[in-house]
Amino acid sequence: MNALPGEHIVKSFDTELQRLTGEIVRMGEIAAAQVEDAIDALVRQDAIAAGRVVREDRRIDELERIVSHDVLHLLVMRAPVARDLREVLAALRIAADIERIGDHAANIARRSVVLREGMPDPAAGLPMLVDLACEIVREVIGAYADRDVGRAIAARARDAELDALYISLFRSLLTYMMEDPHWITPCTHLLFIAKNIERIGDHATNIAENVWFLVHGDTPMPAREKVELPMYDD
Amino acid sequence: MNALPGEHIVKSFDTELQRLTGEIVRMGEIAAAQVEDAIDALVRQDAIAAGRVVREDRRIDELERIVSHDVLHLLVMRAPVARDLREVLAALRIAADIERIGDHAANIARRSVVLREGMPDPAAGLPMLVDLACEIVREVIGAYADRDVGRAIAARARDAELDALYISLFRSLLTYMMEDPHWITPCTHLLFIAKNIERIGDHATNIAENVWFLVHGDTPMPAREKVELPMYDD
Repeated sequence: MNALPGEHIVKSFDTELQRLTGEIVRMGEIAAAQVEDAIDALVRQDAIAAGRVVREDRRIDELERIVSHDVLHLLVMRAPVARDLREVLAALRIAADIERIGDHAANIARRSVVLREGMPDPAAGLPMLVDLACEIVREVIGAYADRDVGRAIAARARDAELDALYISLFRSLLTYMMEDPHWITPCTHLLFIAKNIERIGDHATNIAENVWFLVHGDTPMPAREKVELPMYDD
Repeated sequence: MNALPGEHIVKSFDTELQRLTGEIVRMGEIAAAQVEDAIDALVRQDAIAAGRVVREDRRIDELERIVSHDVLHLLVMRAPVARDLREVLAALRIAADIERIGDHAANIARRSVVLREGMPDPAAGLPMLVDLACEIVREVIGAYADRDVGRAIAARARDAELDALYISLFRSLLTYMMEDPHWITPCTHLLFIAKNIERIGDHATNIAENVWFLVHGDTPMPAREKVELPMYDD
């Protein structure tokens, strides 16, 4: 169908940016749900559900490709500058962090299958760790959707809670391993699962920092309270 | 001093791209050296050298900021398209992967300090793992410097060797832990150090894929032989 005279098919930059934001928010929602599904599969020892999480990760990868494609398109067609350029670059980086969160969910699901002897006691602390991680992820995605720097800063601050929970779980897993060697193999996998969740918090932090960057550019983001924990700080 | 008539201060895109490439190659060299220094500090149980690796990581972070800044500048001033745009985006991504390799080196150095009782026997396999990882990193950086897709593909293929070495080390660490509980804590740290090195291989793979992307765009890179190792595949 031909366009009527006066109509134009060139969408405004804002419309395209809104679409990009929508894609990223959707990616973020899927990634958070994937993390929850992965730990749910672990707790219920449901290998089918775990396999579903592993397969669903492709959807997030595909969304990241769409975002990258849209970003390339915007850069070529609009040659944006200043805040518009920061919007586009922040979108690219945030999508990359969400994609990594999705990878961690898939890794958790893969490892959950290895714990063949049922959900071990030492794993009891994992759901709380996951709940907090997903809460932080949803907060930073919400902060991005609203370009709300204050909310991004508040969400980032909660990463310290996640680190503290992770360390306490790490120590408890070591104790199990020392008390009974039969825990060594399952607890090793649980250690890596816990580390995956702790890393999700780091990606949420990156997202919060990108919300700051897109609003304030290279002005440094206010420092956050962070306990130096060299032993566990990967 | 004023420019002479006929002189111009606008550098060509190629010159700026060369500078960007040079910055990234330098980042890559520093990152590979940092990984080697970190494991060297671990083997010699040299806390001062380990501290140096942790501090030096800031140099890599600073170089990444310079690259990001230069990329922004190029995007704004040149509004590149096609291969030029891919060059700029690949530079951004490769710098991000090198920055993560630097983080892994710093993490290894931090953990090496925790192994206070001297270099434990189970760590004997680590230097070989590091040598291979650094070899692959140098290969992909060289492939990037020369825009040599064949070399990038060959380097990426070697990640399977690294995975196999990692798995064999992982199993050996588990065996130590089961034989004697006093190995549990040090071996847990060694497990995470080994995982850091294995992850360096994944970042090298990403770099190889970006060399492909900048030359061939969205054409898919040939698949590689990859054994599915769900247990250890983080």
